[in-house]
Amino acid sequence: MSKKNKKRSKKTGMAPGSLVYVGDMIPDKIKITVTRYSETDFHEIEAKTIEECLPDTDGHITWIDVVGVNEPETIRRIGEKFNIHALTLEDIMDTDHRPKMDDHDEYLFIILKHFSCGNMCDMNNQDELDDLQVSFLLGSNYLISFQEADDNLFGPIRERLRAGVAKFWQMGAGYLAYSLMDIAVDNYFTILEKLDEAINVLEETAATSYDTETMRHIQTLRRRVISVRRAAWPLREVISRLERSETHLIAESSNIYFKDLYDHIIQIMDTSETFREILSNIFDIYLSSVNNKMNEIMKMLTIIATIMMPMTFVAGLYGMNFKYMPELSKHWGYPMALCIMISIAGGMLVFFRKKKWL
Amino acid sequence: MSKKNKKRSKKTGMAPGSLVYVGDMIPDKIKITVTRYSETDFHEIEAKTIEECLPDTDGHITWIDVVGVNEPETIRRIGEKFNIHALTLEDIMDTDHRPKMDDHDEYLFIILKHFSCGNMCDMNNQDELDDLQVSFLLGSNYLISFQEADDNLFGPIRERLRAGVAKFWQMGAGYLAYSLMDIAVDNYFTILEKLDEAINVLEETAATSYDTETMRHIQTLRRRVISVRRAAWPLREVISRLERSETHLIAESSNIYFKDLYDHIIQIMDTSETFREILSNIFDIYLSSVNNKMNEIMKMLTIIATIMMPMTFVAGLYGMNFKYMPELSKHWGYPMALCIMISIAGGMLVFFRKKKWL
Amino acid sequence: MSKKNKKRSKKTGMAPGSLVYVGDMIPDKIKITVTRYSETDFHEIEAKTIEECLPDTDGHITWIDVVGVNEPETIRRIGEKFNIHALTLEDIMDTDHRPKMDDHDEYLFIILKHFSCGNMCDMNNQDELDDLQVSFLLGSNYLISFQEADDNLFGPIRERLRAGVAKFWQMGAGYLAYSLMDIAVDNYFTILEKLDEAINVLEETAATSYDTETMRHIQTLRRRVISVRRAAWPLREVISRLERSETHLIAESSNIYFKDLYDHIIQIMDTSETFREILSNIFDIYLSSVNNKMNEIMKMLTIIATIMMPMTFVAGLYGMNFKYMPELSKHWGYPMALCIMISIAGGMLVFFRKKKWL
Amino acid sequence: MSKKNKKRSKKTGMAPGSLVYVGDMIPDKIKITVTRYSETDFHEIEAKTIEECLPDTDGHITWIDVVGVNEPETIRRIGEKFNIHALTLEDIMDTDHRPKMDDHDEYLFIILKHFSCGNMCDMNNQDELDDLQVSFLLGSNYLISFQEADDNLFGPIRERLRAGVAKFWQMGAGYLAYSLMDIAVDNYFTILEKLDEAINVLEETAATSYDTETMRHIQTLRRRVISVRRAAWPLREVISRLERSETHLIAESSNIYFKDLYDHIIQIMDTSETFREILSNIFDIYLSSVNNKMNEIMKMLTIIATIMMPMTFVAGLYGMNFKYMPELSKHWGYPMALCIMISIAGGMLVFFRKKKWL
Amino acid sequence: MSKKNKKRSKKTGMAPGSLVYVGDMIPDKIKITVTRYSETDFHEIEAKTIEECLPDTDGHITWIDVVGVNEPETIRRIGEKFNIHALTLEDIMDTDHRPKMDDHDEYLFIILKHFSCGNMCDMNNQDELDDLQVSFLLGSNYLISFQEADDNLFGPIRERLRAGVAKFWQMGAGYLAYSLMDIAVDNYFTILEKLDEAINVLEETAATSYDTETMRHIQTLRRRVISVRRAAWPLREVISRLERSETHLIAESSNIYFKDLYDHIIQIMDTSETFREILSNIFDIYLSSVNNKMNEIMKMLTIIATIMMPMTFVAGLYGMNFKYMPELSKHWGYPMALCIMISIAGGMLVFFRKKKWL
Repeated sequence: MSKKNKKRSKKTGMAPGSLVYVGDMIPDKIKITVTRYSETDFHEIEAKTIEECLPDTDGHITWIDVVGVNEPETIRRIGEKFNIHALTLEDIMDTDHRPKMDDHDEYLFIILKHFSCGNMCDMNNQDELDDLQVSFLLGSNYLISFQEADDNLFGPIRERLRAGVAKFWQMGAGYLAYSLMDIAVDNYFTILEKLDEAINVLEETAATSYDTETMRHIQTLRRRVISVRRAAWPLREVISRLERSETHLIAESSNIYFKDLYDHIIQIMDTSETFREILSNIFDIYLSSVNNKMNEIMKMLTIIATIMMPMTFVAGLYGMNFKYMPELSKHWGYPMALCIMISIAGGMLVFFRKKKWL
Repeated sequence: MSKKNKKRSKKTGMAPGSLVYVGDMIPDKIKITVTRYSETDFHEIEAKTIEECLPDTDGHITWIDVVGVNEPETIRRIGEKFNIHALTLEDIMDTDHRPKMDDHDEYLFIILKHFSCGNMCDMNNQDELDDLQVSFLLGSNYLISFQEADDNLFGPIRERLRAGVAKFWQMGAGYLAYSLMDIAVDNYFTILEKLDEAINVLEETAATSYDTETMRHIQTLRRRVISVRRAAWPLREVISRLERSETHLIAESSNIYFKDLYDHIIQIMDTSETFREILSNIFDIYLSSVNNKMNEIMKMLTIIATIMMPMTFVAGLYGMNFKYMPELSKHWGYPMALCIMISIAGGMLVFFRKKKWL
Repeated sequence: MSKKNKKRSKKTGMAPGSLVYVGDMIPDKIKITVTRYSETDFHEIEAKTIEECLPDTDGHITWIDVVGVNEPETIRRIGEKFNIHALTLEDIMDTDHRPKMDDHDEYLFIILKHFSCGNMCDMNNQDELDDLQVSFLLGSNYLISFQEADDNLFGPIRERLRAGVAKFWQMGAGYLAYSLMDIAVDNYFTILEKLDEAINVLEETAATSYDTETMRHIQTLRRRVISVRRAAWPLREVISRLERSETHLIAESSNIYFKDLYDHIIQIMDTSETFREILSNIFDIYLSSVNNKMNEIMKMLTIIATIMMPMTFVAGLYGMNFKYMPELSKHWGYPMALCIMISIAGGMLVFFRKKKWL
Repeated sequence: MSKKNKKRSKKTGMAPGSLVYVGDMIPDKIKITVTRYSETDFHEIEAKTIEECLPDTDGHITWIDVVGVNEPETIRRIGEKFNIHALTLEDIMDTDHRPKMDDHDEYLFIILKHFSCGNMCDMNNQDELDDLQVSFLLGSNYLISFQEADDNLFGPIRERLRAGVAKFWQMGAGYLAYSLMDIAVDNYFTILEKLDEAINVLEETAATSYDTETMRHIQTLRRRVISVRRAAWPLREVISRLERSETHLIAESSNIYFKDLYDHIIQIMDTSETFREILSNIFDIYLSSVNNKMNEIMKMLTIIATIMMPMTFVAGLYGMNFKYMPELSKHWGYPMALCIMISIAGGMLVFFRKKKWL
Repeated sequence: MSKKNKKRSKKTGMAPGSLVYVGDMIPDKIKITVTRYSETDFHEIEAKTIEECLPDTDGHITWIDVVGVNEPETIRRIGEKFNIHALTLEDIMDTDHRPKMDDHDEYLFIILKHFSCGNMCDMNNQDELDDLQVSFLLGSNYLISFQEADDNLFGPIRERLRAGVAKFWQMGAGYLAYSLMDIAVDNYFTILEKLDEAINVLEETAATSYDTETMRHIQTLRRRVISVRRAAWPLREVISRLERSETHLIAESSNIYFKDLYDHIIQIMDTSETFREILSNIFDIYLSSVNNKMNEIMKMLTIIATIMMPMTFVAGLYGMNFKYMPELSKHWGYPMALCIMISIAGGMLVFFRKKKWL
């Protein structure tokens, strides 16, 4: 959150459509992979120039996968070639944008988030989840995907394309968009599972660990669950609109797939909501454990103190230096004093046991 | 929750409609029971092949009850015979799915949950409630029910069918679907009653038990109530849509039954909401009891300590070895010291009683 | 809540419309009072048979007041005579049902709750409020009211009928239904007033009582307020629908009365919401009082302990048996030791007063 | 709240429209002031009989201001003369009614609340805010205002009328109603300002005062804020409906004024919401202050106790009466014991300082 | 909040449209800057009289920027010249108004807030954020902006205008209004970033600082986040209405810009919501840290006390002055006593370590 926000203010006062990269990950170079396929045909090239990316007119579907959005010049030239609105270009580079969908008649613009699962999945780490932005530009026969960083998210889809493109070609570019969004949403389940594991571990330790570390751990998990929720929440509306087929760019036959995706988002919302409640319960258990631990210690102090104090008093009593203390010179004085002390201790133990303090 | 989520991520990147079983209960074998009835006719067979399951065309209603959904092959073949969409088949096997209803013109697909009431109803057990998924495929003259595990949930309906099929035949397959859903919803009341009993027991012990165990108990119950709520909540919408008769597969005459079912779901939601509030109150009472217990102990310490300390001081005072301490050599020295001590103790007791600390 | 839920599960698997009494109050016998009136005419009889209850066709309005709903046989026969749907009959006997309204063209079925105000209004009692179900069957020229128990709720209406039936006859059976519902809603105000009194008492004692009893008292009141709220909440929708005159069984001229009733329900909701907030505040005050009380005691301990400990130390110091302790053999030794002790005590008192701990 | 609720139950079972005064303020006598004005004309009389109040037919607008609503007889006679529905009359006398608007074609009936600002604005007083009911009956050329008590709320409007009636006459009776409602709403701002002052005072003292009094003070303010909110909330809907010009009794040209009034109500809601959050924060600060205060005291105890106890032990050690204790007979014994004590104390102080406990 | 509210009550009873300045910032003098531009033309003058401000009729767009709204006379004369409704003028001067939009056919009136970022951005300061009101009057070919105080908020826009007016002229006055609103909204991001920094600092210190200062700090930040949220919330509706192009004063071509602005507002709402959750977590961490700190200290006391007390008792025991205590006269007496003491201390340390208290 913080590191990204920082640069947002640099845009104050700039004209709308100004291209400013607000993220902080700088891949070495923008990498553009172009995949072209028709019913039987399949090409995959790494594009050197923007011109290589342009969709052809002989029935192929073209998927341009752009990794890295930190070069305004490249983004601007893609914008020119594909006739993209300046505000859309600005949103592509603004990697701190909220998930959303814009319907510009000629193309559909979709922003969503996934979470990088590299070293960030270590739950001992207290940072927030690192969200990565993916945006899609869906035209009639092409799809451009912009990724903030290269983490091979779309690898499985590429595999499936290589294995056979017939279904992808029949269902059109909208189905390809669905497949890519589906894989991003599946990424949420992976994150939730990792959170689930961490929560389970925490649940077992919460009742027996009393340090601030456990406390911070709970808060870190809480915040991560909120991150997932915050990324999924606006997606619900995006996919709901896609499902309702408000746009001519997505075939009616794809609706059922988006409906399925919508169900997944709802499941993610439900699960993250449940996680929040569980974490809240774990926090209660933690606080109660810490409290009970203290109570146990305090009770021990109480008992030792209340037993020792009267005994010490008796000892002090016979330590007084009065000349005329008849007990002091009797043979039975010392044993008697010991007896008094022992019976005080014994009496108190009985009293405490009766009160169920022991 | 956790154990099921685990396998969801294995589906990442698979084509939609891939059949993967995400649950963890593996019955020995899928068991298919086929029940056929017309106004007067009634057959019940255990099917060996899928072909035996197909509905006939001479006016019978066919109920195919499939127990076990972990064999992709069998599910796929049922899908082929009944012309079921690949995504529906995927959902049947995805036993971690949220309750929902899909209206595919030719059939209606409904998912709901019930809770296994075997050893899970033991409230000392701290696991979550084990939900079992049931899904229904309702066609014009057939109903297929898929159960995740065999716990004889539908036994009573089978009894009523054997007893007389006239009403079931007149009202059509939709009424059979209603009856099966009704029995699943009645299962929620059974769970709520068991929760109610456990809550009542807890309520009585909460004010007098101070261990972490009680605390965990409250949290376990809380989570179970949430589980029931989470299962019932989406059902509300499903049944509301069935009641509004949005589909031609359910006769208008059945609406009143679904309305009744809807009332039951609302009652379940209300009751679980009330349980949550009661558990929250019990938690408050528990925390307050633990606190009051500690306060009682602390008060005792305070009183004993504040009484003993001045007395011990007086004893120490006359234990000093100064040569010239006039009291030490007087006959009345010792009795006087005892008197001082006793009057200090007495004065304090009076003071504490006046302050209402005793 | 608990005692009623118990029997709900007995209905699992039964055919819809099965008549099972789920309550636990068994009046000796069902009592049926039939009141017949036209503009000038007024009869009141206690019916022995169902046939006596049937409405006539010469312009009278017939009010059949059934007290006790635990005899399935009687309810079934009433159902037959008045042509009532099986599910409605089931709901009449299910005294744990949620308030609701069903519009069956020929009759209107309304369920609502009132609270028995016998020994249950004793707020020391920690049980929940005992809600009693009343249901109404409103036909074109008759009204059947079913009461779970006889507590003379409708007495005042009967008085007004005896006093003069003109207005009742002119406005039709719907106005009679309104009058009976109005009196049930007025019963809520009575309960709220009793709760208000109990809350006021509690408010004054909360700041000065520190036992768990006060705590439980607050929770009991909380739960009762929730009970009232839960009973009133669904009523809001019922009366709103009656007011909007969705049914031909209620004359347009009665709308203004139902609107008035609706205002009352909103007022009940508002008041109970306010009570919840007040009780929540009282709980905060209680917790804070208990805490402050403990703090006062702890402070006293701190002060006595920190004053006595150094003094005792000085006493102990001069109680040591070293041969060569010059002070011991001086005449001014003892007075000096006393002075040291007194000045330690005095210094500390000054220090504490400066710190405002005293 | 409490005192007014008390009498509500007396109405149980009465016919709708029964005139019962539920409030508890009994002004000596109902006082009726009649103000008549046309474009240039202005009369103001104190009416002795109801007949003097009737609006004339020669273009004057008549404002009848009734102070005191506790005489059923007078209210009934006004009702007869102006042809007012019995339920409206009942609501006028029921001074515990919720703000609302009823549109009876011939007249508009509006209830709202303002707060008496006499001795009740003293925030040391722990009672709830005393709300006073004002109701308006707006006809085509007359306005009747009913006030529960005489606190000269409408004084400023009367001044403005005396100063010049042109605008009031042009805009019709609806504008007069607006002006009176506006002054009642301005009264809310006055209350909010007083609450704001009290909150500011409280905010400064909360961090340094630890008594239950501060706690109660916070709760009292909380409840007053809730009172204002509760009075304003239903007003929002009333004024929204007036603004949307649903009634022919209010000229379209007045809409902009009601829109302005609506903005004020929203502002009141916002402000009271903010106050609640601030009070909640103050409460957190108060609790934390009390806690920190206790912690400071406890830390002091810990340090004194842990320093004195070992020193006292050493003193006790050399107070033992063993014959053979070599140190006792040495010259360096006493200084050594003192050194041991001082070094224990010093070591502990260093330890505590290192631990940052000091 | 408080300082502004103060004067609101002075308006009680005044006629609607009365011009009263409720703020407390008094700039020396109202400063009016008039900017006129057509496609190629650009003038900027500081106006001495209202007449200089009037828009011309030869195709220029005129932006009148009024800084300071505390002179009723000037505001009234502007109102006359531009034919502005009295209530609008009142709202311009009422600098405590809620953000809103009014559509008077001839002009559009918009109120929004930004936050002064001078010395108020110092988070050690505990005051609330100082919001400054900006209002816009958008006509067909002119825009009047009213600023409460001069903080050069619109500087960047003026720069862009000077650099080139072509786009501004083509898109009309609505686009200028958008640009100015955009810069005010960007100001919110600046504030959020500063809050973010302060939150990050706080997050790191919360776990290790235990004073009330940290507590107040958290509360101050909380309140500031609420301030931002409260300012942004009504803006959401304002901009949503502008985006939906409900008014003819804003060209359809500007819609996409307002949509972008709307996204920004949603982002602000989301971020401030997240901040609230984070601050709430930090508060939990703070409370838990304070608690753990205390627990650590208490544990230390317990251990020292429970070790020293039995040892002191043994010392007291052999300090008794009985004549017949056999141990006292043995050579092994003193070493034995020391051994007993050491073994008690050792045994306790082992016990505590086994209990994991050390």
